[in-house]
Amino acid sequence: MNRAHPQNRYDYDVVVIGAGHAGTEAAAAAARLGAKTALLTTNLDTVGQMSCNPAIGGVAKGQIVREVDALGGLMGEAIDATGIQFRMLNRRKGPAMHSPRAQADKKAYQNHIKWQIESQPNLDLRQETVEDLITEAVPSDQSDGLAAQRVVGVAVRGDAVYYAKTVVLTTGTFLQAIMHTGEAQSAGGRAGEGTTAGISGALNRLGFELDRFKTGTPPRLNARTIDYSQLEEQPGDDDPQAFSYLTRSLDIEQMPCHIAHTNDAVHELIRQNLSRAPMYSGQIDSRGPRYCPSIEDKVVRFADKSSHQLFLEPEGRQTHEVYVNGISTSLPRDVQDAMFRLIPGLENASIMRYGYAVEYDYCPPTQLWPHLESKTVAGLFLAGQINGTTGYEEAAGQGLVAGLNAARTVAGQSTWVPSRQDAYLGVLVDDLVTAGTDEPYRMFTSRAEYRLLLRQDNADRRLTAMADELGLISAERRQRFSHKLEQIRLGREMLSSARVEQTPADVYLRRPEVTWDVICDLVPELQAIEPEAAAQCCVDIKYAGYIDRQQMEVDKQQRMSEKRIPVSFDYGRITPLRNEAREKFMKVRPLNLAQAKRISGITPADIALVLAHLER
Amino acid sequence: MNRAHPQNRYDYDVVVIGAGHAGTEAAAAAARLGAKTALLTTNLDTVGQMSCNPAIGGVAKGQIVREVDALGGLMGEAIDATGIQFRMLNRRKGPAMHSPRAQADKKAYQNHIKWQIESQPNLDLRQETVEDLITEAVPSDQSDGLAAQRVVGVAVRGDAVYYAKTVVLTTGTFLQAIMHTGEAQSAGGRAGEGTTAGISGALNRLGFELDRFKTGTPPRLNARTIDYSQLEEQPGDDDPQAFSYLTRSLDIEQMPCHIAHTNDAVHELIRQNLSRAPMYSGQIDSRGPRYCPSIEDKVVRFADKSSHQLFLEPEGRQTHEVYVNGISTSLPRDVQDAMFRLIPGLENASIMRYGYAVEYDYCPPTQLWPHLESKTVAGLFLAGQINGTTGYEEAAGQGLVAGLNAARTVAGQSTWVPSRQDAYLGVLVDDLVTAGTDEPYRMFTSRAEYRLLLRQDNADRRLTAMADELGLISAERRQRFSHKLEQIRLGREMLSSARVEQTPADVYLRRPEVTWDVICDLVPELQAIEPEAAAQCCVDIKYAGYIDRQQMEVDKQQRMSEKRIPVSFDYGRITPLRNEAREKFMKVRPLNLAQAKRISGITPADIALVLAHLER
Repeated sequence: MNRAHPQNRYDYDVVVIGAGHAGTEAAAAAARLGAKTALLTTNLDTVGQMSCNPAIGGVAKGQIVREVDALGGLMGEAIDATGIQFRMLNRRKGPAMHSPRAQADKKAYQNHIKWQIESQPNLDLRQETVEDLITEAVPSDQSDGLAAQRVVGVAVRGDAVYYAKTVVLTTGTFLQAIMHTGEAQSAGGRAGEGTTAGISGALNRLGFELDRFKTGTPPRLNARTIDYSQLEEQPGDDDPQAFSYLTRSLDIEQMPCHIAHTNDAVHELIRQNLSRAPMYSGQIDSRGPRYCPSIEDKVVRFADKSSHQLFLEPEGRQTHEVYVNGISTSLPRDVQDAMFRLIPGLENASIMRYGYAVEYDYCPPTQLWPHLESKTVAGLFLAGQINGTTGYEEAAGQGLVAGLNAARTVAGQSTWVPSRQDAYLGVLVDDLVTAGTDEPYRMFTSRAEYRLLLRQDNADRRLTAMADELGLISAERRQRFSHKLEQIRLGREMLSSARVEQTPADVYLRRPEVTWDVICDLVPELQAIEPEAAAQCCVDIKYAGYIDRQQMEVDKQQRMSEKRIPVSFDYGRITPLRNEAREKFMKVRPLNLAQAKRISGITPADIALVLAHLER
Repeated sequence: MNRAHPQNRYDYDVVVIGAGHAGTEAAAAAARLGAKTALLTTNLDTVGQMSCNPAIGGVAKGQIVREVDALGGLMGEAIDATGIQFRMLNRRKGPAMHSPRAQADKKAYQNHIKWQIESQPNLDLRQETVEDLITEAVPSDQSDGLAAQRVVGVAVRGDAVYYAKTVVLTTGTFLQAIMHTGEAQSAGGRAGEGTTAGISGALNRLGFELDRFKTGTPPRLNARTIDYSQLEEQPGDDDPQAFSYLTRSLDIEQMPCHIAHTNDAVHELIRQNLSRAPMYSGQIDSRGPRYCPSIEDKVVRFADKSSHQLFLEPEGRQTHEVYVNGISTSLPRDVQDAMFRLIPGLENASIMRYGYAVEYDYCPPTQLWPHLESKTVAGLFLAGQINGTTGYEEAAGQGLVAGLNAARTVAGQSTWVPSRQDAYLGVLVDDLVTAGTDEPYRMFTSRAEYRLLLRQDNADRRLTAMADELGLISAERRQRFSHKLEQIRLGREMLSSARVEQTPADVYLRRPEVTWDVICDLVPELQAIEPEAAAQCCVDIKYAGYIDRQQMEVDKQQRMSEKRIPVSFDYGRITPLRNEAREKFMKVRPLNLAQAKRISGITPADIALVLAHLER
């Protein structure tokens, strides 16, 4: 849409809409690359807000945070600065499963992110309500054959326009949002806040397919009204581990969480009131996150379970608000009140905010390239929940990828996206654009083929050198990273040259019972190796066999990835191709044979046909 | 209105609507008195929010904060805990003019208030959107003759009702609010937030007169884009003074403010764009605060001034947002951008939030009794900006008075309001209910007849004993206060018994050049008197003449106040009374002769007639 010339115009390279976990990473990444960037949000007081649980990380998600940090993102340092409890999950399993998770002081986290954004050179954080996207037709000689339109800016409330070379859309759950608590509905993407209608209209007009998802939050309780003596305490780790490779130590007093349990009486109450639950009454028919089910879903889907755990998570050091993890619900408020009456320790709990579900528009992400730019509207990037994902970490990761590529596009540089073998972020964007998602997408370790390579401990070794090349990281990070690599090199050298019981020390270290402390006693010069580097030496050596095997598979995959398919490849030419395969190829537009192979329902015969035509 | 029985009902003694500066004090006061209290707010994340300047106190306002504190309120301790700069204004003038003022860390202040509210026994803080007031008819045998209706609760979004014996309404600028920036308008009481329509409708239906006021805020800048080297620094005091009588010391690192100046070029720009200013284009016709004018008002009203001071106030320790005190404006955004381009030091300043004006409904406060209960709807109390005032301090003070009396009403106790000779709070409520206000009302020292008595240093001596009797204060405060009184008594005793140069020490102390330090050197036992008590001894003795004279006037006034007028006094019976006087008496319904005399336009002859009829 082109508008009459407005009184107020601003010119930027990159405009980011929305300042949640995706938008802040996008804007910071673009600005770090030198793009003149504006970050626009309806309310400056909600920058970096944790709309749902006051926690960062967890299984697979923690790995993403480490990757975002390795790429110079904000999330890792922010949670290290404001965390109130740190735990490394799955410590007893292998290193690929180790997953950092932390409880945040929710308000402090938000303030920290805002402060970092305000401090970022090249970045203007401004309170604006975006009402429309402005595009123009792409002359046919400039088009890649798919993008007929190009975004040139956004119109904001108050007759003003931000012109931009690229725009990143990170609207979270705010597009045409409706909140539900039992029979009661109201418009809004978060309790007490409004919705964003103009952008959905613009996306419709531009021919985007939009669909509806739903998600939910649990009630928040006042800690003053909880009987903690009846609950089990869950403390943080004795040796809290940081998320950021820049954090030297976490010298904080940790706060405990507590565990409560539902019971048959609670489940019976829920069953009796299912007809009043929007998900069951037909009031909501969009899909929610399967792996983060509401309590009513749990009671229905796991009918044989007589109890579910609830984690009571404090929302900060200076608040009595408590997030009840595990009891997300859109049941009516009287049922929410009654549920707690039946849970030991929570009988007198006072609800401060009722749980609710929210339905919102998302854009099925097969409409995007892997670098998260729209296929049909050049210069328009989408990241976060608008792409059908759930989770702060998934949002942050996409934001970084989108912001990075928005800035590279402005600079006329080629796009860059980590591959599935490089990072969970690679898995994330590839899954989204190749397979789409028919329920809110969250990351799991099982989604990664090469999860032994994609560990939380080596995200820097996987990504930081590339991040440096891209211009994403600070001098401090570069220096710290080189130092660590040098330490690893030194440690490996010492281990290969020293001998223990006539065995090379690195071979001796492979024995399961031999820890770093043991080998240090035997090879005292190893004491010069710093703990982070030592841990890398240990993993490298102890898991060498498995790692090498995965690396071989990666290399094989790599060859497939190198068989590139042109963006405007004409699948119509391959007459023997099944119609279903042709349609899928034309929808996804895989960029190489490896991606083509991953499209669901595509057979080796389909791939062989494409390959044959590519080689002609 | 009576509603069908809803599924969800809650029962409270006192329900407070709105959790700003008035609502939080009201709820805390009611709960301290033992009333079962609910505090309802549309958004729990905005409890105690400083919507405009990040500062507490100032001339006359600082005195109010000290009074609120002396009565056990929240504001004093909150600013002491979260202030980043403290200054005692008018230090070179007499003690009646000394006025504490502090810059707050805006977010920390808000979190502190929320935390105090969450911690308060008997008080439930809940996120709810109030949609209607529920009332019932008062049987004529129970009415005072004026109140035909009685409030019995409030309906909230989601088909729920809070039943209550009394309701305190503190809706700030949110009733039917419209924001203006230049030609652009949008609904909302604060940028990024919505408006509250249902309550205006309910007030209309209940026969309340509503009128419109407007107020405004300045733009916020990013500190990173300000050239501080061109600005004058304004540091805090070397010996920062606390607001709360409970704060022992302020051991903080203070942050400076900075001063910039407008100039002829800025003023010329504004004059050229006056036709686009909503206040001048006719787009807004409601009245704003005279003593907090917009920059466009200043340029018009003080046309001969070629420069105005701007105070750049940091909004916190961990933010780059800067509040520009002195440049409140609703000029269009391009004019706001252009203004800063012309101000030395701010040429490159980046606006984070544009200034705007907001128009909102208020209830002319002559519709209230001095204890802030509606005359026509029993049990309904109004406090804060809804009563036509401006300022956080005025709001907090009214909130405390309303909450206190809401709880006392529930308990069947008589109402209590400080008198004009007791407190600025007394001046405030008396001015509001006796004279009303035709522009947003703010406090000044000149509004108080007895300002030498109403000093910031003696608010505890004026109010804390009464607060204790009312049940408003903690054991700690009681103990601290008794100790201070005992110290003052001891100091006075030592001063009257000791002699310096053959003169009683207390007489010697009256000499202007004799400070406490001087007298301490001469009468060493005085060193046992703690500084706060010593300061009181000094003021008491040095200003005894003036104080005694004001006290005599107070006593005279007191006799007039004791001539009470019944609530339903029939002015129609006084046939010789002028019509104008009769109408005014019937509107204000003064509770005693002193108040009657203060009604504007009332003559001594009118008073004499009323007195004659009262004595019959």
